[in-house]
Amino acid sequence: MLPTDAVLTGPDATAPYRQDRAFDPDAGLPLAVALPTTTADVQQIVRLAAAHGVPVVPRGAGTGLSGGASAVDGGIVLCTTRMRGLRIDPATRTVTAQPGVLNAELKAAVAAEGLWYPPDPASFEICSIGGNIATNAGGLCCVKYGVTTDYVLGAEVVLADGRVLRLGGPLIKDVAGLSLLKLFVGSEGTLGVITEVTLRLLPAPPPARIVAAWFRTIDDAAAAIAEISTSIRPSMLEYMDATCIRAVEAQLHPGLDTTAAALVLGGSDDLDPARRDVRFMMEAFTRHGAYAVTETDPETGAALAAARRAAIPAVEAEGRLLLSDVGVPLPRFGDLLDGVDAIARAHDVTIAMLAHAGDGNTHPLVLSSWDDDELAERAEAAYGEVMTLAVSLGGTITGEHGVGRMKRAWLRDQIGDDVLEVAQRIKDALDPSGILNPGTIFAPR
Amino acid sequence: MLPTDAVLTGPDATAPYRQDRAFDPDAGLPLAVALPTTTADVQQIVRLAAAHGVPVVPRGAGTGLSGGASAVDGGIVLCTTRMRGLRIDPATRTVTAQPGVLNAELKAAVAAEGLWYPPDPASFEICSIGGNIATNAGGLCCVKYGVTTDYVLGAEVVLADGRVLRLGGPLIKDVAGLSLLKLFVGSEGTLGVITEVTLRLLPAPPPARIVAAWFRTIDDAAAAIAEISTSIRPSMLEYMDATCIRAVEAQLHPGLDTTAAALVLGGSDDLDPARRDVRFMMEAFTRHGAYAVTETDPETGAALAAARRAAIPAVEAEGRLLLSDVGVPLPRFGDLLDGVDAIARAHDVTIAMLAHAGDGNTHPLVLSSWDDDELAERAEAAYGEVMTLAVSLGGTITGEHGVGRMKRAWLRDQIGDDVLEVAQRIKDALDPSGILNPGTIFAPR
Ligand SMILES: Cc1cc2nc3c(=O)[nH]c(=O)nc-3n(C[C@H](O)[C@H](O)[C@H](O)COP(=O)(O)OP(=O)(O)OC[C@H]3O[C@@H](n4cnc5c(N)ncnc54)[C@H](O)[C@@H]3O)c2cc1C
Ligand SMILES: Cc1cc2nc3c(=O)[nH]c(=O)nc-3n(C[C@H](O)[C@H](O)[C@H](O)COP(=O)(O)OP(=O)(O)OC[C@H]3O[C@@H](n4cnc5c(N)ncnc54)[C@H](O)[C@@H]3O)c2cc1C
Repeated sequence: MLPTDAVLTGPDATAPYRQDRAFDPDAGLPLAVALPTTTADVQQIVRLAAAHGVPVVPRGAGTGLSGGASAVDGGIVLCTTRMRGLRIDPATRTVTAQPGVLNAELKAAVAAEGLWYPPDPASFEICSIGGNIATNAGGLCCVKYGVTTDYVLGAEVVLADGRVLRLGGPLIKDVAGLSLLKLFVGSEGTLGVITEVTLRLLPAPPPARIVAAWFRTIDDAAAAIAEISTSIRPSMLEYMDATCIRAVEAQLHPGLDTTAAALVLGGSDDLDPARRDVRFMMEAFTRHGAYAVTETDPETGAALAAARRAAIPAVEAEGRLLLSDVGVPLPRFGDLLDGVDAIARAHDVTIAMLAHAGDGNTHPLVLSSWDDDELAERAEAAYGEVMTLAVSLGGTITGEHGVGRMKRAWLRDQIGDDVLEVAQRIKDALDPSGILNPGTIFAPR
Repeated sequence: MLPTDAVLTGPDATAPYRQDRAFDPDAGLPLAVALPTTTADVQQIVRLAAAHGVPVVPRGAGTGLSGGASAVDGGIVLCTTRMRGLRIDPATRTVTAQPGVLNAELKAAVAAEGLWYPPDPASFEICSIGGNIATNAGGLCCVKYGVTTDYVLGAEVVLADGRVLRLGGPLIKDVAGLSLLKLFVGSEGTLGVITEVTLRLLPAPPPARIVAAWFRTIDDAAAAIAEISTSIRPSMLEYMDATCIRAVEAQLHPGLDTTAAALVLGGSDDLDPARRDVRFMMEAFTRHGAYAVTETDPETGAALAAARRAAIPAVEAEGRLLLSDVGVPLPRFGDLLDGVDAIARAHDVTIAMLAHAGDGNTHPLVLSSWDDDELAERAEAAYGEVMTLAVSLGGTITGEHGVGRMKRAWLRDQIGDDVLEVAQRIKDALDPSGILNPGTIFAPR
């Protein structure tokens, strides 16, 4: 049985678990918040919910940006914060963790053994590894080192009927049966609750060198990014526009040049002297009109990467945000920047732009309002048009944050009726009564 | 309409398409072999088959080693050999190909643009890219560069009802909806026919250096492999035992030392002078008792890698083979070698051993017979016990070749009732009448 302090009820106690970082205004009022510690606890909660037809919203650290962990009226929020076990196995170069372990905790624990878990969402200090698996999280190093799914070797999942599935394990290659493991990665809590994961690790990373380039126009920055990403393999290629630069400077005072139109950070951990990726990046930035290009020393490099990671919260400090996460094929990156600019002008809203540029994955942050309804409406319209734009450029409505509840209305435009229908059949096959995270990805029943 | 030369009927014309390289003696007699050129052709074939309840066996180049492309009685073999289109897009660093393109053709085409498609099954010169996606093929470089699924960004699939799904595209990150794309990878033709794929490419690979190490005992070789794979990141770590060495030497005369108990090939493409992986490997091999260790020149290295790739056909030249593909967590690699040895002795059969050792993925080749029934029975028993052994060591019955028809009887032992039942629900959701590749992975209806 769950201990009594593991179940929270009442509006006050449950309030902190109602929304994720998307602050979905339509989040519901949960019946209860459950804080399991073990897989058996999770089974007990899911079985009870299933028996009573009560929806279950899985929740990690609640840093999601698409309302995937918003509570639903009368449902249970199943939050993994107490599931914090972790076991490193250097002999197989894997770590097995409960889902509530924070990404940063896991990184630190494996680093102590000389190992490295690459995926690094900008939120790595505050997001859970279970949430990362459930959203197939990206990050800064993904341009070279891939996304979360590339590191998931095994998982334990509690299904909608309370059964436990064990998928994969500490095996580098295993093709026995359908790839159910990869299906659960990125399923945003709609197919099962992830209760344990086994992740592949790499040897400690080579030290990266970071080049900072400051631009007077966003077109120049886009052109430099295009050349770099088709010529070499940077370990990071990040972009921030003037609005982000100014917001971060206002919040944290790291000494950014607030007169720039864009800052691009290029990283390289290729130590082959024959490749000289750092020199290539410096030359490409200069050739495309950057007015200042520096290879940073390690402290400055780390400070600039931290400034980049602070961009979302910094812009958020200025008011309500609608967080986009659109991606396009790399050659359309410049078109996307221009198109977002045009949308901002058409709706008279500010859209701050930051991007994992080497992936073509951008975060146009639409500044909305909590009290100015008219602005909020314009912002909402712009938010939708940004997704429509991305789809028209052959892109995606979500590169890494997930569909959640807040992008569901645009999913069909991207993937089409048939793909959605097949996905729905799989959802129905695994969760026939639809109790798992209703409203996320799929329309609630 | 399909041209008349695109449909073969009658036992003689269809004979070359009855079996794959597993030479399944239970392969059926097909009604027809269809050779489509376009996606529309594939739709037409699948719709016709669906309308008449006729099974469809998708087939690429027929190099599969698990009977996944064996014909079924009264079914259609849908063979992709004529689907050979290919389009490279350097701006997104992707290639989009029809499924019948051979892995080697695709590698060569992208290499001409300075790009690289890493996955390299030993059969790369004769297997199709569609077959590689359908089996989630592995290979030699996977120990460092990952398996096929890690490179699949998009696919077009014809479902059992003839509908076409388009999944993903030339986007590095895309998490919109369930990961259906990854579900189709490795589905062995049981969920749909892959009619086009979009693959991620890397810049041309750094030159690899290959170290050859010759051992007097398999235990020494296993110990060296264990140390190397937990210490550095080789780009290749391959193992051949005495039986393989002698068979290759007898066939191709590359000048191998036929007195060795094992040959291990370690590759490194890490050019960072500070890492010195080649030196680490040479020292580790020597420390663990290798009697000869050489860093090869490029020609010798290529010749040794080719000798390794020739091992299966060379042993096959000696008679009928039952091809295993078991994998274990790396620390159990030595136990697996010992256990296979014990099984060979217990059943008085020869089991040649080769392995993608750095992955823990081994190919125990059980020598069987086409005419000695008694030997064939002992070989069959040993083949099964090898899989049971792998499962008992926490491993897999198939690391890269797939379950096909010939390993289906052991699948449940590995993945368990619940995982199999969930996989079956997904199969039923996507192919309700079970016409796609019946008998592969799932029991036929
Ligand atoms: C400042 C900031 C920067 C960010 N930067 C990035 C970035 O660079 N890259 C990126 O990918 N994301 C980023 N994010 C988004 C977010 O951090 C990620 O989506 C993260 O993976 C969510 O983890 P979480 O533990 O907070 O999950 P939650 O927000 O709690 O949940 C996210 C989704 O996963 C599901 N879920 C959570 N745990 C489980 C479980 N155990 N089983 C099943 N389903 C579960 C939930 O139902 C929900 O649908 C950022 C967020 C912030 C606030
Ligand atoms: C000498 C030798 C060495 C080998 N070495 C390796 C190795 O190192 N690594 C490795 O992974 N494999 C290896 N293999 C096995 C084999 O080459 C791979 O499994 C390969 O991926 C099969 O490709 P194929 O085109 O021959 O597929 P086929 O044998 O024709 O089919 C294989 C499976 O894929 C399905 N399939 C094929 N095409 C499609 C399609 N378009 N849509 C849907 N389903 C489809 C079939 O139904 C079948 O289930 C080796 C084989 C040989 C003979």
